[in-house]
Amino acid sequence: MSEPLLMHINNNVFLRDQTLIIVDRRYLPAKIVEVVCNDYEEVAQAIEKMAVQGAGDIAVTAAYGLYLAAVHIENHLKCNTEETRQLLLTASNRLIATRPTGFHLKALLGKMIAKINWEEAGCSNQLLTSINQAISKQQLCSELTGKWGNTVLEDGDCILTHCFPGAGLLYMLKAAKEQKKQIQVISTETRPYLQGARLTAWSVSDLEIPVTLITDNMAAYCMSQGMVTKVFTAADRIALDGTIANKVGTFQLAIAAAYHHIPFYILGYGGPDKRCAVGKDIPVEFRNPEEVLSINGIKTTGEKVKGFYPAFDLTPPELVTAIITDRGKIAPDEVNTYRSLPV
Amino acid sequence: MSEPLLMHINNNVFLRDQTLIIVDRRYLPAKIVEVVCNDYEEVAQAIEKMAVQGAGDIAVTAAYGLYLAAVHIENHLKCNTEETRQLLLTASNRLIATRPTGFHLKALLGKMIAKINWEEAGCSNQLLTSINQAISKQQLCSELTGKWGNTVLEDGDCILTHCFPGAGLLYMLKAAKEQKKQIQVISTETRPYLQGARLTAWSVSDLEIPVTLITDNMAAYCMSQGMVTKVFTAADRIALDGTIANKVGTFQLAIAAAYHHIPFYILGYGGPDKRCAVGKDIPVEFRNPEEVLSINGIKTTGEKVKGFYPAFDLTPPELVTAIITDRGKIAPDEVNTYRSLPV
Repeated sequence: MSEPLLMHINNNVFLRDQTLIIVDRRYLPAKIVEVVCNDYEEVAQAIEKMAVQGAGDIAVTAAYGLYLAAVHIENHLKCNTEETRQLLLTASNRLIATRPTGFHLKALLGKMIAKINWEEAGCSNQLLTSINQAISKQQLCSELTGKWGNTVLEDGDCILTHCFPGAGLLYMLKAAKEQKKQIQVISTETRPYLQGARLTAWSVSDLEIPVTLITDNMAAYCMSQGMVTKVFTAADRIALDGTIANKVGTFQLAIAAAYHHIPFYILGYGGPDKRCAVGKDIPVEFRNPEEVLSINGIKTTGEKVKGFYPAFDLTPPELVTAIITDRGKIAPDEVNTYRSLPV
Repeated sequence: MSEPLLMHINNNVFLRDQTLIIVDRRYLPAKIVEVVCNDYEEVAQAIEKMAVQGAGDIAVTAAYGLYLAAVHIENHLKCNTEETRQLLLTASNRLIATRPTGFHLKALLGKMIAKINWEEAGCSNQLLTSINQAISKQQLCSELTGKWGNTVLEDGDCILTHCFPGAGLLYMLKAAKEQKKQIQVISTETRPYLQGARLTAWSVSDLEIPVTLITDNMAAYCMSQGMVTKVFTAADRIALDGTIANKVGTFQLAIAAAYHHIPFYILGYGGPDKRCAVGKDIPVEFRNPEEVLSINGIKTTGEKVKGFYPAFDLTPPELVTAIITDRGKIAPDEVNTYRSLPV
């Protein structure tokens, strides 16, 4: 059993010779294509083009972008503290604007800048320390979320999943396997970017766990045939009322799961966004409609057809069985208690 | 406004110099690729490979295959009546085996052979007459179904559809347009063969009706945003209890529509299959799982991942608002009354 490449961000987003290397997820698993980013603008564009995905991993990648900006300021510009701070805020705003739905991006960059001790020399080093702390924290969060997720898994479960729910799913499956639970996975391919096919199914197969790929429209059929015992997805953001923002299609799966009385779990990692009281406070990202009009660069429809591409959707708490965080399993309508739970 | 290519089967499945030409739907709308079939086996393979689709059009195409078999027997073999009948039955069985879920294929071929007057010379001519009658009947059926469908359409409707629901959808939209109703269409792309993108969205745009393409996982989001006022799909077969067999994904849309209280209509053309009392009497076709593991011939996932490809699913009558046939609109639990309705 080889460790899946996506089980740790250090495997696929890392510094090399003062550039940021991103293993482009759009080409996985067929090819390892490295995107080399020399500055924060290139990092922002790589995020926009979806070379990296997943709310936590996007945040860390953007944080490296901020680091590159700081290095550039230190090496090439003569700035005083205030000028440096302004330039970092400009870079941060550019990076934050790349993907509006995820929760971690804005939170991490804001915290990193707020934490800088301007009395101390070398803010780039401080940012790098913050990034490494964030990665460690995120990895521990994934591991704990996976551990809690495993507590609801039973021998013989066949779980359906959507998009790539992050390393927490892999930790969960690994923990189940270590306890000799027989688990199978069904992964939706997750159009248009195929994260389910390219990332999830491949990563799960690297754990030597049986995994079956379906197209996005086959999930309800599989449920009706008794092939699915539990559904697990991640969340890009969770509101305090328990509404889940996640990859578009999550809501449709939650409705189908409820219809079939199949438990629907959210891998909620670090809990809700305290700035979002209700679901409609979460901004849904609309991507370029052209992205749904072609596959692999080949146009699929007529010239007069328009596209529409909401990248996320909102799943109301009544369709969710439980939100599984690094602090344990929480009922969706009690997710606002997350911060009071013991770490 | 040009008539959509798929509005009449004579535009895309026809005889030329004793061969059958099929305009390959897998390449539409980008390219007009003609599949040339010299014998019934080549017709069977073209059907299996999905060069043609839709229960009615598959049946007519297969009927042409039977015709090619009869021509071959007449021109190249010295057979008595019983030998000819046996060879035609062999051809018919091969053609029927191509796609098990659709209702029309077996019915049409069985009827054509039963109708042959063996006293009369030239059974191929008789088969050709039967084919032309079937085409006329099917076209009229589509037009009437479209006419009845239009009676439930209201000015301002935005209808969601899935796969290619056949010429009935186009007749319905054309009738609405002639009455100056403003209608918009949202089409799911319908993985893995993309009939929604390639056939439906393109055909609707040829009617100069606004049409938007989405991926299969975006339908519930669109419903939640008030973008969908009615859903229309076709049926490959309808059981007497009102269960609908249609392209996989139909069931998922029906569940999502019910959740949002959006009417869900079936274009039921010539009504139910009287040999299927209940839904589970309808055979669901499972296609080669490899077909979900790649797009445009490019593998989308890892080597150890399996695929699963149910080509159809079953939607229970309680999720269906009405079945719209060539004889009018019927409640799904009364679809067994179809044959008693006035023609």
